[in-house]
Amino acid sequence: MGLRVLIRNIGECLTLIGPEGARRGAQMKKLGLIRDAAVLVEDGKIAWVGAERLMPDPGRAKLSTPVDARGGVVLPGYVDPHTHPVWLKPRLADFEKRLQGASYEEIAKAGGGILSSVNGVRGATEDELVAALRPRMARFLSSGTTTIEAKSGYGLDADNELKMLRVLKKAGQDSPMTIVPTFLGAHAVPPELDGRRAAYVLRVAEEMIPKVCREGLASYADVFCDQGYFMPEEARTILAAAKAGGLKARLHADQLSLIGASKLAVELGAASADHLDRAGDGEIAALAQSDTAACLLPASNYFLGKPYPPARALLDAGAAVTLATDFNPGTAPCFSMGFVISLACTQMRMLPAEAISAATANAAWSLGLHQSLGTIEPGKAADLICYDADDHREIAYYVGGPPLAWVMKNGTLIK
Amino acid sequence: MGLRVLIRNIGECLTLIGPEGARRGAQMKKLGLIRDAAVLVEDGKIAWVGAERLMPDPGRAKLSTPVDARGGVVLPGYVDPHTHPVWLKPRLADFEKRLQGASYEEIAKAGGGILSSVNGVRGATEDELVAALRPRMARFLSSGTTTIEAKSGYGLDADNELKMLRVLKKAGQDSPMTIVPTFLGAHAVPPELDGRRAAYVLRVAEEMIPKVCREGLASYADVFCDQGYFMPEEARTILAAAKAGGLKARLHADQLSLIGASKLAVELGAASADHLDRAGDGEIAALAQSDTAACLLPASNYFLGKPYPPARALLDAGAAVTLATDFNPGTAPCFSMGFVISLACTQMRMLPAEAISAATANAAWSLGLHQSLGTIEPGKAADLICYDADDHREIAYYVGGPPLAWVMKNGTLIK
Repeated sequence: MGLRVLIRNIGECLTLIGPEGARRGAQMKKLGLIRDAAVLVEDGKIAWVGAERLMPDPGRAKLSTPVDARGGVVLPGYVDPHTHPVWLKPRLADFEKRLQGASYEEIAKAGGGILSSVNGVRGATEDELVAALRPRMARFLSSGTTTIEAKSGYGLDADNELKMLRVLKKAGQDSPMTIVPTFLGAHAVPPELDGRRAAYVLRVAEEMIPKVCREGLASYADVFCDQGYFMPEEARTILAAAKAGGLKARLHADQLSLIGASKLAVELGAASADHLDRAGDGEIAALAQSDTAACLLPASNYFLGKPYPPARALLDAGAAVTLATDFNPGTAPCFSMGFVISLACTQMRMLPAEAISAATANAAWSLGLHQSLGTIEPGKAADLICYDADDHREIAYYVGGPPLAWVMKNGTLIK
Repeated sequence: MGLRVLIRNIGECLTLIGPEGARRGAQMKKLGLIRDAAVLVEDGKIAWVGAERLMPDPGRAKLSTPVDARGGVVLPGYVDPHTHPVWLKPRLADFEKRLQGASYEEIAKAGGGILSSVNGVRGATEDELVAALRPRMARFLSSGTTTIEAKSGYGLDADNELKMLRVLKKAGQDSPMTIVPTFLGAHAVPPELDGRRAAYVLRVAEEMIPKVCREGLASYADVFCDQGYFMPEEARTILAAAKAGGLKARLHADQLSLIGASKLAVELGAASADHLDRAGDGEIAALAQSDTAACLLPASNYFLGKPYPPARALLDAGAAVTLATDFNPGTAPCFSMGFVISLACTQMRMLPAEAISAATANAAWSLGLHQSLGTIEPGKAADLICYDADDHREIAYYVGGPPLAWVMKNGTLIK
């Protein structure tokens, strides 16, 4: 027998036990809440969960390391299914310029915007990028996120995109975080190919994706499919190459314009369509009838002061909604899924339970990890967080959430 | 000689050294920034601040307890000049009902709203309220706030208003927090006097204020002067009684309607006019020409999803702007001045330096404490916070701020 941990005195345990796959509609309001609960962990996995008074085999408990939840709220560690965490420096000057009224174009002309992050990544060594990423992993973890999806996309050539993915691989080896890597070569057209988008699409599809696949550096491929970025037919070309190489699809969709991106995501069976700020009735209906997650990123709307995506309509139509930070240096310098949950409720009228479902079980499902994490049930990873709170609704009510008492990854306390 | 502490290796020290009183206009953009700085603390007060290489009398340094700022950003502890922290339970059911579309009236009918907090306070003992307040003080402090203004206003009769103020006094004795108490008997008309507002105004002015003053329980008096609450003439009556008793004035103004509240604040020389969501050109001009602080509370706008106050117009007109959380259980369950600074910049287009000035030096001035705290200069309290950051703009850029490395109150590290 390996290491055993017994968590007792849990005021509310949100197990999220429910359907095997995506939660939709009324299912998102069900948290599988158990009061006065205990969780037994063996070898980093959940061995038992239930009301403490019903705990079987007290002998096992005696041999365990005790963790006292002090009446707090325990739930699965957050799964953040959309982040861009590999970059060198925060874009502080851009931020200040934007507050003073500068347009996106003016910021880009002054050397800012996404290109400044591209220059940063291209000019940095793998070790420098790992060093920049390490404290970010610590911040994700200390805010309760135990799994992230993480994208490349500031390299924009084969060497630098692969460098970013190797950085993620290394970070996953030296941090307890579970990192799901996504290749996002089609994040923007690189400066050296300015105006030659078709050439870049071919380079992504024919050069970069095969290299990424050969090294086994990514699980997903993503495309920024929007006006001014990549058109649906280009996304189709790229995602076909990705599929041939064994990469599943995600898609930046309907953020700036409606050009058919989320409908393409549904057609291709993509795991997720992300942003959806502009999604209308047709897009919402298509997503609701699909197995493509509707991933909402309200921290970027907040940071840019733009209208929020139609969360309520997506939920009411039956879409499988997920929430993510969109963590990135330009439009969402936000680590905290707790704050994203606050935004989801106060700005998009999601209910606390819906937001928690979106940030745990549904997010795990959208990354294909629902059999190993995202709920508290026997056999799954003991990725658990405990809030110093009496009621799970406090997670959404206090801006940023109540204090986190502890964070556990694979059965080990890391905060 | 008493206790000496030497803080070294400060990457950016924001001293806020500048005008003695209120900062206005371009002054709010000046942080008195010193790079590679050190701060010497003696007996809980700042003895010296400057570039580390210029530190005089190294002998003193040798006899000091060292604190390493590790290149971080050091600034004055936040001063939060508007909070309502004394209550029993969070209003979680109201919150969830509001997300589902219930109106303020429906929530009130169901026993929610401010009256539920009044019932909570009235039904609780002083000790129960102190116990509920204690962890809130800890959260303010751990988020970098070392001074708060704190209002009564959930008692609405003499016994219970005085109980709230005694709770604040006790909390100030057993916490390192500096608490500036404000009597807000005129927060709402109590249920037992429903429809008899004039009678309640008299009770506040003639019974409650004299009692508060006799016990020395408050420094300020405040009135919720708005449509449906108290009219300007009623506020005038109450604040005249307060003045006679030695209490200075603050005013909830221009939040729901324009009935002349901020103009009354200016006329009476109130220390602060708070909220100002509806303030127009006339109100802005009056405030700009006065010594009444314009206190903005964007966390309540955020939480309720309402438009933000005209921060930019107030700043540009030359008003002395302050920022506060408005911490309260109904409309702003937010402890964090870091998050308020994020809101100030991303939602109201304040610059990071303006927001930091508003949350430190100007807030201290608006509480009459500018000679003892709010800046880092010799003779002032060593209330200091240190962010693990390279650049002060990160405070506004990362939603909620970078991690706080430590919090110091009167020269003692408390986090």
